[in-house]
Amino acid sequence: MAGNTFGQAFRITTFGESHGPAIGVVIDGCPPNLPIDIAKVQAELDRRKPGQSAITTPRTESDQVEILSGVFEGLSTGHPITLLIRNTNQIPKDYSHLKDIYRPSHADYTYQQKYGIRDYRGGGRASARETAARVAAGAIAKQLLAEYGVKITAFTQQIGNIGLSPSHTVDFKQIEGNLVRCPNAEIAAEMVNAIEQAKADKDSLGGVIKCLIENVPVGLGEPVFDKLEADLAKAMMSIQATKGFEIGSGFSAASMKGSEHNDSFINPNGDSISTSTNHSGGIQGGISNGEPIEMRIAFKPVATIGKEQETVDKDGNAVKLEAKGRHDPCVVPRAIPIVEAMAALVLADHWVRYNGNRPL
Amino acid sequence: MAGNTFGQAFRITTFGESHGPAIGVVIDGCPPNLPIDIAKVQAELDRRKPGQSAITTPRTESDQVEILSGVFEGLSTGHPITLLIRNTNQIPKDYSHLKDIYRPSHADYTYQQKYGIRDYRGGGRASARETAARVAAGAIAKQLLAEYGVKITAFTQQIGNIGLSPSHTVDFKQIEGNLVRCPNAEIAAEMVNAIEQAKADKDSLGGVIKCLIENVPVGLGEPVFDKLEADLAKAMMSIQATKGFEIGSGFSAASMKGSEHNDSFINPNGDSISTSTNHSGGIQGGISNGEPIEMRIAFKPVATIGKEQETVDKDGNAVKLEAKGRHDPCVVPRAIPIVEAMAALVLADHWVRYNGNRPL
Amino acid sequence: MAGNTFGQAFRITTFGESHGPAIGVVIDGCPPNLPIDIAKVQAELDRRKPGQSAITTPRTESDQVEILSGVFEGLSTGHPITLLIRNTNQIPKDYSHLKDIYRPSHADYTYQQKYGIRDYRGGGRASARETAARVAAGAIAKQLLAEYGVKITAFTQQIGNIGLSPSHTVDFKQIEGNLVRCPNAEIAAEMVNAIEQAKADKDSLGGVIKCLIENVPVGLGEPVFDKLEADLAKAMMSIQATKGFEIGSGFSAASMKGSEHNDSFINPNGDSISTSTNHSGGIQGGISNGEPIEMRIAFKPVATIGKEQETVDKDGNAVKLEAKGRHDPCVVPRAIPIVEAMAALVLADHWVRYNGNRPL
Amino acid sequence: MAGNTFGQAFRITTFGESHGPAIGVVIDGCPPNLPIDIAKVQAELDRRKPGQSAITTPRTESDQVEILSGVFEGLSTGHPITLLIRNTNQIPKDYSHLKDIYRPSHADYTYQQKYGIRDYRGGGRASARETAARVAAGAIAKQLLAEYGVKITAFTQQIGNIGLSPSHTVDFKQIEGNLVRCPNAEIAAEMVNAIEQAKADKDSLGGVIKCLIENVPVGLGEPVFDKLEADLAKAMMSIQATKGFEIGSGFSAASMKGSEHNDSFINPNGDSISTSTNHSGGIQGGISNGEPIEMRIAFKPVATIGKEQETVDKDGNAVKLEAKGRHDPCVVPRAIPIVEAMAALVLADHWVRYNGNRPL
Repeated sequence: MAGNTFGQAFRITTFGESHGPAIGVVIDGCPPNLPIDIAKVQAELDRRKPGQSAITTPRTESDQVEILSGVFEGLSTGHPITLLIRNTNQIPKDYSHLKDIYRPSHADYTYQQKYGIRDYRGGGRASARETAARVAAGAIAKQLLAEYGVKITAFTQQIGNIGLSPSHTVDFKQIEGNLVRCPNAEIAAEMVNAIEQAKADKDSLGGVIKCLIENVPVGLGEPVFDKLEADLAKAMMSIQATKGFEIGSGFSAASMKGSEHNDSFINPNGDSISTSTNHSGGIQGGISNGEPIEMRIAFKPVATIGKEQETVDKDGNAVKLEAKGRHDPCVVPRAIPIVEAMAALVLADHWVRYNGNRPL
Repeated sequence: MAGNTFGQAFRITTFGESHGPAIGVVIDGCPPNLPIDIAKVQAELDRRKPGQSAITTPRTESDQVEILSGVFEGLSTGHPITLLIRNTNQIPKDYSHLKDIYRPSHADYTYQQKYGIRDYRGGGRASARETAARVAAGAIAKQLLAEYGVKITAFTQQIGNIGLSPSHTVDFKQIEGNLVRCPNAEIAAEMVNAIEQAKADKDSLGGVIKCLIENVPVGLGEPVFDKLEADLAKAMMSIQATKGFEIGSGFSAASMKGSEHNDSFINPNGDSISTSTNHSGGIQGGISNGEPIEMRIAFKPVATIGKEQETVDKDGNAVKLEAKGRHDPCVVPRAIPIVEAMAALVLADHWVRYNGNRPL
Repeated sequence: MAGNTFGQAFRITTFGESHGPAIGVVIDGCPPNLPIDIAKVQAELDRRKPGQSAITTPRTESDQVEILSGVFEGLSTGHPITLLIRNTNQIPKDYSHLKDIYRPSHADYTYQQKYGIRDYRGGGRASARETAARVAAGAIAKQLLAEYGVKITAFTQQIGNIGLSPSHTVDFKQIEGNLVRCPNAEIAAEMVNAIEQAKADKDSLGGVIKCLIENVPVGLGEPVFDKLEADLAKAMMSIQATKGFEIGSGFSAASMKGSEHNDSFINPNGDSISTSTNHSGGIQGGISNGEPIEMRIAFKPVATIGKEQETVDKDGNAVKLEAKGRHDPCVVPRAIPIVEAMAALVLADHWVRYNGNRPL
Repeated sequence: MAGNTFGQAFRITTFGESHGPAIGVVIDGCPPNLPIDIAKVQAELDRRKPGQSAITTPRTESDQVEILSGVFEGLSTGHPITLLIRNTNQIPKDYSHLKDIYRPSHADYTYQQKYGIRDYRGGGRASARETAARVAAGAIAKQLLAEYGVKITAFTQQIGNIGLSPSHTVDFKQIEGNLVRCPNAEIAAEMVNAIEQAKADKDSLGGVIKCLIENVPVGLGEPVFDKLEADLAKAMMSIQATKGFEIGSGFSAASMKGSEHNDSFINPNGDSISTSTNHSGGIQGGISNGEPIEMRIAFKPVATIGKEQETVDKDGNAVKLEAKGRHDPCVVPRAIPIVEAMAALVLADHWVRYNGNRPL
């Protein structure tokens, strides 16, 4: 069984390769009667698209989305919503020299071994170009969740050695105001510098994204295996280049005592139960408890670098490699909408699992 | 859709509550003709069972497993293998005072809100007792994987503030030789002390487990959503009390450069491609590359503590709580076989997805 | 991927062999807060159990059901409900002579070829004994549906050459009043005679079951592949010995004209839309329309007969076979509760798909 | 959970409405390294397309298929294969008068009730136009099966009162040689006449399709619920306008004796086991036994007719209806490739379930 479908009730199937005719997604299970604003889908794609700034890949794709099905007179019909994005800026010759070479820390070797064939042009199906389909689908999921007040905000917390610390001020309004999507302009500027330096060095950087989900309805998540944090972890770890996932207290929980870590239930106004702290990260027993869901996701530095590297070709001969294709020196800024999209897809899926697919 | 099934091709469905008659698991999709050694299943359950040492819960369960189906003359038949474990040491009265109280950082509140009903005895379905079924199923998965030489080893890397550092020697033979399952006897002794101290303080500790999978066949994992690390992350984050997951370099990748992080392909003997480093953690493009799979999983301190805590009851009234039930001061040592079981279940599932369900 | 799970939202997984320790079922996705009456489960099992009359197999099984999980204080909890039935009347020596023989029109040959191994005792997993698990699960589904007034009635319409025709009176109260479960006492007596004659001839008979589902909520069924009649067809054709399925007009539709077949919408009282005829069989566009769902299911004559038959052994040598095991001369009477159970499981599944798994 | 996905391992998801921009399908799980001939896909679509003869709907669609993903240098890559067909001959005004009317025996009423919204143009998602996507996907499945010699042949056995009887000669070469796809030219001519007469009468006809699958590998089908005949039944009953399904002996089995119906195993040449008769229809115990799979599928007369009919509008008011849209007087001839496609999809799915998704 192949693995191009995500979700069980609000379920997406993505398709397409970096240098094929198009990428896209079929969303099955969106409840009927949801107003669909295609402009919002396009806006999310614009946040992700390549070539949007000096610190992203120079590949230019307009990433214009077309709705092929499932929307009638501005409303979802309960039938599959299909979103198509044509590839327009393929330059296959960029990649012909990579046909027989296994690039370090890319999917070339494993794809060739597993499938016996691979579309080597720009990574084919392994390319992060695939994530445009996730972002488009996530934009529909966000519209469903927005009906219930759910708000998803991701931002850059660390790039290379530059990181936000608890002492730094955080202002969500600044996120889209700088090239790295960091909610602190000063740190953002340092991060941009670090990326430009890496680019000049023909190298690349990793980073950490934090994602916050507010106004989550209580009751989402399905024990025991489909706990909400389990599905969120899978969602995030399915994004290219991710290496780690934390919910709530994350790895810091390992050195805390129960008496410190436990989130006491309180009822400050006598009419609504909440918790005094949120080490749980908004999820208890695998189910949302109404507090903000907080996650952190680690990204490795981009595997494609301009520096010369040693590797082997398909026959096992040692070769030297210098990347010639177009690539980002750091994926983190463009991964912000991807993280948000995957978060939205998980929540929308659990929302429909819990509430069924009756018309809104 | 409820969430008690894990895996798609080697697929398990678990059932049972902490204080019901039994817990168990149905495994569907185990290939036929696999020799099944029930003693090995029992041995894994014995590693997980309560009451096994002074630092675990005093609840005593023999956890005797019975095979109800799917094995004929010592071989799997290709039909569902059902494993049943009767509960024998329930003491429901231990829990009657918790009927209307929401214990901090437990599933009481979210279960009540989501389901409108909960079996409050020992956590009901939310209890970690459920993991016995995972361990039993994982023991079958291990037997399938062992046919192909796959070896899974988990151990305790950190408990509270005591941790193995890169300078410490690690000897896998010592893992089962101490109460905390740490591969360094000296550190293990410190960890035991820390747990005993926490127990004396009526408090609890968290920790970190490392899991290593060796001799993994190349080609397991299904892009794009069912990447091997994505399914491993889901598996681990579905275990009670987990807060973080890392594959390979994990969060440390965020501050590395691409030129440092990339794993060069090499062919040292001219007959087999491998990588010079393993920051990828044995997975590239979502597919196993033949290098060891390395994961780290963070566990929070146990939520049940003897210290008095503030919380609310179902009507929102403030109440004080002191745990009276039986519990572990630290789950990490008993979670070792659970982590191994979940790792085995993910690999067995992907093995069958790739190879089908023909007889072995 | 093996196939022991049925349904997507109200989802059952069955297990067990004819001569293993037990058979059973795990139901995942039953909404919480449903009153569960175990006596009703037992009553359905009693309708299916062997040895209930002179015209069924002499194997005697009490088929006592035990609930292992998922019910607390008489209510479903939203967690897996597990029902276990121990086998008590296995006589393995009955079957030892069949170890290497392929019985005509049984699953012996195909199981051996597919799995490379088979439990030859009483058909193993292929035995209709497996259907006890379906009946038990169906009894839970019926309790969910009964909350909404749904009523499922199956009865024998034909056995061998004896059939109910449109001119015969039908009285549902008589169904459980005769050995063949036919709603006309006179025809029932003829059917019993026919079965007794077949038994005396060491032969067997087939038949047709009609199933009627009344008070179905409008809106169940999921276009385009999971149309309600498609899932019902699958459900019925998964029962052993079934050879045909009809919904509404069935095969007679082939020779009707559109102007005859179309069901006009009417609104007789001005407050509720219905149809003047019901050739559609209660389903239009794959979705229930509120009219009674009507199905007919054809069963072949039992493959196990006492008469000598020619066949081959596993090495391809011609052998003669006379059945010595215990078997029914006609499965139709005992298949009535099985058909009802599968109908209930399909409807419950679609009910949960549509309404989600919120507490009742 | 919506229902636009079919299959578990060779899995298709279809999308699109009759009068939307396009219809299409994503195929996930096609094994890599399969040669893909797009001309064969187009040829199957041409067999199904509207306007192909005087007895089909006058809607003219060229149904040109475009491959969007999953094929590289003429081979499948193991990634999703997406096939897109643009709608070009929509005439929405044809349907505007149907906005508020429930056409008899159509999906208008149930869609409106279930979804609260419907695309009333030409039936929207309920239109048989959706089956073009099935045919396109089936053409890929056929190419996989052809690698193993599997051959699928469907033909018209009955239209209205005109039917092939056992005494008629059958010549598969004639199937594509007449407008109704009947393998007997004389009967075909009668069928064409019957359809022309129905058309002249502003009425419609039903019929029966027989489907034969030869050279099926032994071992396909997954007991107990995913028996091969169960999945075939679902596949066929998911096609618009189907009312009945038979495998092998079908309903005639009901009046046969076991000694007549049983298929004796034989070994005529001493090197290959087969059966002397094939009442089982090529499937025993839910698993293919190597004999030809034989099915019959009943189709109702087309619901859209030119004759005036009585029905109601959405407010329950009685209205008179005369169809003005374009439609077929009998769907059976164009349903032949649809039946073949669904048969191919079921077999391909079970082939991959059994053999995994390793490269061919």
